[in-house]
Amino acid sequence: MISKNQLKLIKALESKKQRKKHGLFLVQGEKNVAELFHSDFIIKHIFATPSYINAQGALLREHHLIAKTIEASEEELNKAGTLVTNNSVLAVVECKDAKLPTIKTDELILVLDQVGDPGNLGTILRVADWYGIKHVVCSPDCADFYNPKVIAATMGSFARVKVSHTPLPDYLKAQSSPIYGAFLAGENIHQAQLADSAFIVMGSESHGISSEVEAFISNKITIPNFGHAESLNVAMATGIILDNFKR
Amino acid sequence: MISKNQLKLIKALESKKQRKKHGLFLVQGEKNVAELFHSDFIIKHIFATPSYINAQGALLREHHLIAKTIEASEEELNKAGTLVTNNSVLAVVECKDAKLPTIKTDELILVLDQVGDPGNLGTILRVADWYGIKHVVCSPDCADFYNPKVIAATMGSFARVKVSHTPLPDYLKAQSSPIYGAFLAGENIHQAQLADSAFIVMGSESHGISSEVEAFISNKITIPNFGHAESLNVAMATGIILDNFKR
Repeated sequence: MISKNQLKLIKALESKKQRKKHGLFLVQGEKNVAELFHSDFIIKHIFATPSYINAQGALLREHHLIAKTIEASEEELNKAGTLVTNNSVLAVVECKDAKLPTIKTDELILVLDQVGDPGNLGTILRVADWYGIKHVVCSPDCADFYNPKVIAATMGSFARVKVSHTPLPDYLKAQSSPIYGAFLAGENIHQAQLADSAFIVMGSESHGISSEVEAFISNKITIPNFGHAESLNVAMATGIILDNFKR
Repeated sequence: MISKNQLKLIKALESKKQRKKHGLFLVQGEKNVAELFHSDFIIKHIFATPSYINAQGALLREHHLIAKTIEASEEELNKAGTLVTNNSVLAVVECKDAKLPTIKTDELILVLDQVGDPGNLGTILRVADWYGIKHVVCSPDCADFYNPKVIAATMGSFARVKVSHTPLPDYLKAQSSPIYGAFLAGENIHQAQLADSAFIVMGSESHGISSEVEAFISNKITIPNFGHAESLNVAMATGIILDNFKR
């Protein structure tokens, strides 16, 4: 059973302030929790249905998690969690401090400026993981990486892609690799020379890349428009741009 | 003011059955309604705030819509519509019967098999419009094109991309152009020869392309995976594949 205090803690972790205070965040659903077992995240508690514990018992023992596992009914998990479905397991996990990444040979680092929508950030992390991106650097006003909606939308990729939040101008001004930025009127990405080691900056859907960040862009790129849609969703644009860099 | 009967009609149009019965659907928000003015959709009613009518008066007159425009408060529109924000205008519009498309030279036609999520369908129509796709053919179990969530997610592209729903095997068996299908183990799309005239079939995120449809695929293609994410969202995959075809 989930105790009153545990429920209070889980509920608190929906808020960024409380996540920061406790240094904890929520991972929900079988798929996302399964990714934790292969990661270096430290699990504090697992709340799970008897049938989940039954099915995953070997895995829980192997990862020394049995003592941290608390049995809960699906109804309790529904009440505690933020997901509408997939409520057989919920983990309370320690946040990690991601160090700002130093770019390596043949590495692409994704940089996000003001991507405030948690669903967009999660979808971006998922497609970044597909293209082998290891590091994503976010402006402080991006959605919080530990937001339950971000974690859910990553479909497990949250455990592989390292995300840091930092003021972008300070981070970008220290770089010597090319810094690409997506604009509506840049060079056609189908024709542009794309470097193997680079930063790729994506701005918010409504405001684009801010002027303070634009100052550091060395190469403006654009996905050519063959029709009449005015814009693309920022997650979609990120996926298409990564595909062009990796082909 | 929105009358009781009008409110009842608007509410009814949230259901597919009622949309079919009335032959009407909802278009909400300034951006989506603006696209109607440049389309051949026939508007039956516009419900709008005084400030919208004031700002768009010239346009409404130009399109002979003043007589069809009913003033409503933002509160009334909030109550009537399905959107959380952007509630200054709502239009009741006649459905059109989209004819099944005949493929033209240099035309790509998108075919969707069991894409049930309305947000995904809307996002796909938006990116299809970006890449100049004119026709999308959906299996009967795809989300309904006239679903308010689909229309909202297209960000206006619903007015340009023609969508039909039909059993796919019957449609595909009559075709002589190549039929590409997205699979997890097809030919690497970065290396594949991609035709200028073709059908591109996308399956649902959970089930992929059904076996009845797979029988008609002439070219299986795959977006190469450089990392560890297990899959891509179907809308994302559609955008990346269209970019590869159009480059």
